[in-house]
Amino acid sequence: MEENSTDQPSEQPESEQRTVTRRRLLAGAAVAAGGAIGARATRALGAQSGPDPTKVPGARPATVGSRSPHETPEKLLSGSAGGSSRTPLQELHGIVTPADLHFERHHHGIPEIDPANYRLLIHGMVDRPTVFTLDELKRFPEVSQLFFVECSGNGGGAFRGDPRPDQSPQSMDGLLSTSEWSGVSLATLFEEVGVHSDATWFLAEGSDAAVMSRSIPIEKAWEDAMIAYGQNGEAIRPSQGYPARLLNPGWEGNSSVKWVRRLELSDRPFMFRDETSRYTDPLPEGKARIFSFVLDAKSIITYPTYPARLENTGFVEIAGYAWTGRGLVDRVDVSTDGGATWHEAELQQPVLPKCTTRFRYGWEWDGEPAHLMSRAVDETGYVQPTTAELRDVRGPGTRYHYNSIRGWRIAADGTIGFTPS
Amino acid sequence: MEENSTDQPSEQPESEQRTVTRRRLLAGAAVAAGGAIGARATRALGAQSGPDPTKVPGARPATVGSRSPHETPEKLLSGSAGGSSRTPLQELHGIVTPADLHFERHHHGIPEIDPANYRLLIHGMVDRPTVFTLDELKRFPEVSQLFFVECSGNGGGAFRGDPRPDQSPQSMDGLLSTSEWSGVSLATLFEEVGVHSDATWFLAEGSDAAVMSRSIPIEKAWEDAMIAYGQNGEAIRPSQGYPARLLNPGWEGNSSVKWVRRLELSDRPFMFRDETSRYTDPLPEGKARIFSFVLDAKSIITYPTYPARLENTGFVEIAGYAWTGRGLVDRVDVSTDGGATWHEAELQQPVLPKCTTRFRYGWEWDGEPAHLMSRAVDETGYVQPTTAELRDVRGPGTRYHYNSIRGWRIAADGTIGFTPS
Repeated sequence: MEENSTDQPSEQPESEQRTVTRRRLLAGAAVAAGGAIGARATRALGAQSGPDPTKVPGARPATVGSRSPHETPEKLLSGSAGGSSRTPLQELHGIVTPADLHFERHHHGIPEIDPANYRLLIHGMVDRPTVFTLDELKRFPEVSQLFFVECSGNGGGAFRGDPRPDQSPQSMDGLLSTSEWSGVSLATLFEEVGVHSDATWFLAEGSDAAVMSRSIPIEKAWEDAMIAYGQNGEAIRPSQGYPARLLNPGWEGNSSVKWVRRLELSDRPFMFRDETSRYTDPLPEGKARIFSFVLDAKSIITYPTYPARLENTGFVEIAGYAWTGRGLVDRVDVSTDGGATWHEAELQQPVLPKCTTRFRYGWEWDGEPAHLMSRAVDETGYVQPTTAELRDVRGPGTRYHYNSIRGWRIAADGTIGFTPS
Repeated sequence: MEENSTDQPSEQPESEQRTVTRRRLLAGAAVAAGGAIGARATRALGAQSGPDPTKVPGARPATVGSRSPHETPEKLLSGSAGGSSRTPLQELHGIVTPADLHFERHHHGIPEIDPANYRLLIHGMVDRPTVFTLDELKRFPEVSQLFFVECSGNGGGAFRGDPRPDQSPQSMDGLLSTSEWSGVSLATLFEEVGVHSDATWFLAEGSDAAVMSRSIPIEKAWEDAMIAYGQNGEAIRPSQGYPARLLNPGWEGNSSVKWVRRLELSDRPFMFRDETSRYTDPLPEGKARIFSFVLDAKSIITYPTYPARLENTGFVEIAGYAWTGRGLVDRVDVSTDGGATWHEAELQQPVLPKCTTRFRYGWEWDGEPAHLMSRAVDETGYVQPTTAELRDVRGPGTRYHYNSIRGWRIAADGTIGFTPS
């Protein structure tokens, strides 16, 4: 044991040190403490308060690791129609969502599937109708890529009525998560079965109790759709479609049919209840849009937001996620005065297509009330709209694709409340 | 319920169908089955065998998800000196390692730390010795990036003696994992405390029972070292340094001191036991190299490898990981004839610096004995050496940085065994 590792932790109150440190952190200014602290004292300060962990043997490794008992991230549950669970966005760092915190939205719960019994049938307008086992799917060339998945109804609470201020990024927009997805590209499978040149759509049917079924334009298969069996390195979790799901990068989550068991090639869409009674957006004047798959550019601030509170004035890093189903996020602007002025945020590199992008903007809070907003611009030039702009285009009755700008009001006491833009 | 979702699964044996399908998968050839199968029969084939999951309501979402009971990935434990656990590389997809499967290597076990008691002291040759709480560290600008971490002793079994063929990528090289790490860059903290211009090294001291201590050249702080508190979106796990660790991207894992509690700036290295009695590489003629931090380019095939067995001839995707502490992997070559000929593998995009890169190479196995190898080349032009080449340079007594080419012998019966290059 080295000499300078055996110092006992200081039991002295550190209040003065702590105050000084906190002030410096905020102001970025020097303090006078430096020269006055001796080497031994500074070492003691470096030890944690409470029991000294260096004095007891540590725990052994485990075959599967665990979280610290001090860390208990949880998804927020909702009970309607097969249920949903929302990712605690305001607690996360970076872009990857841990698999056990990935949001869920089911239409009749999570089926229990033995992978040995799993089959995927591809038939209809193909030369060779084929049934694939899971092992057979895994023998094809594998593709892996980081993609976001977002429920098409995510954020509806920001659009409808007068949303309560005591809402978090999780409760408002938690039907969003990002994973590295692995599987076989649908193009590979469609070449294998010999899809007919006049096939224009395919049906994707799930093996859940709702038999979730969607019609997908065949172009998506040639572009980047995949049958995914891997998520963040491991097998997909049951709640994400184990053992295999369709994944349509950048499209509304519902189209990425989980527990997929059947793909039928056709020359027209199938008009299932999940694309007529649901997942069709009512528009003004009695019109509606259907097969509105692509998710437009959106961004949300995740810090500082409810339920956090700013304890001090000074430096605050405003951070959040931006994403677009059309490819790359080009820019994110942040406002601290309700949209009167905008500042370009820093984007975490690398910016990846159809993936969440972290944005960060360093701000000095002066203690006055503030109104934070973020606005994403994607590579097509599309600009995330205000709620009023979105309402103008879609009308008040629209039920999906709520990508308007979100706001957060900071009060002089540091408390924070949600507000629509 | 749609009409075509209520078909009962076929109870008929599918052996002929299965055989046909498997043959086509391997040969990529058409089968005659197509026209003979009616629509209803093909739909029935699409349903899984066994109980029909569409007939029972599914499970509700949970606040924290779980793995399928059919998926039980585990790390391989070893009991020496604080213990280690190895990542099941041959079971993973893509590049992300699930946090609970991240390898471990401890010198005196895992300390239990209450984050409220956590302190990081930075002192020595600085203007402002400072103690940071965890909350204070989190108020600085955050950085996030995907990096690999590899133990410097990883793969020693391939270098020493005559390794047994019944070894897997996990047992041989499982002290390797990849995460998205989040935290504050050391450059930010060093600017905050006013590091003296003549400081050239810093000590990093852990709060584990071994008080793991390493001397780090200060250039690493200015380049990309960070104090990490986030891993794959969530808080770092206790086994990875909770609540905060040093992370030196691309350097031997031991230098990325876990549970870091103290950084001391100096104008010379500290010569601790963990860099003299350990982590110094004996070289030929009584010489040794010390402070050999950077991990040279390396690659390993993860499929097909022991304990898998090739069941059929035909298409096999050879896949694995490549990485280099010097930045980007430039190329990976694969040989199936023991190094006589080499073929360039496809690299999964985006290739990220100091991160694992997936490589894949499509191969047709003809059923004859084969000898697989992979060879990484990094952006500096460094070529992963054979074991003989590495032994020539380092001598037989070297104890770290075992990056030589690994081999896998495939027998005519499809069984696979490890072999050094």
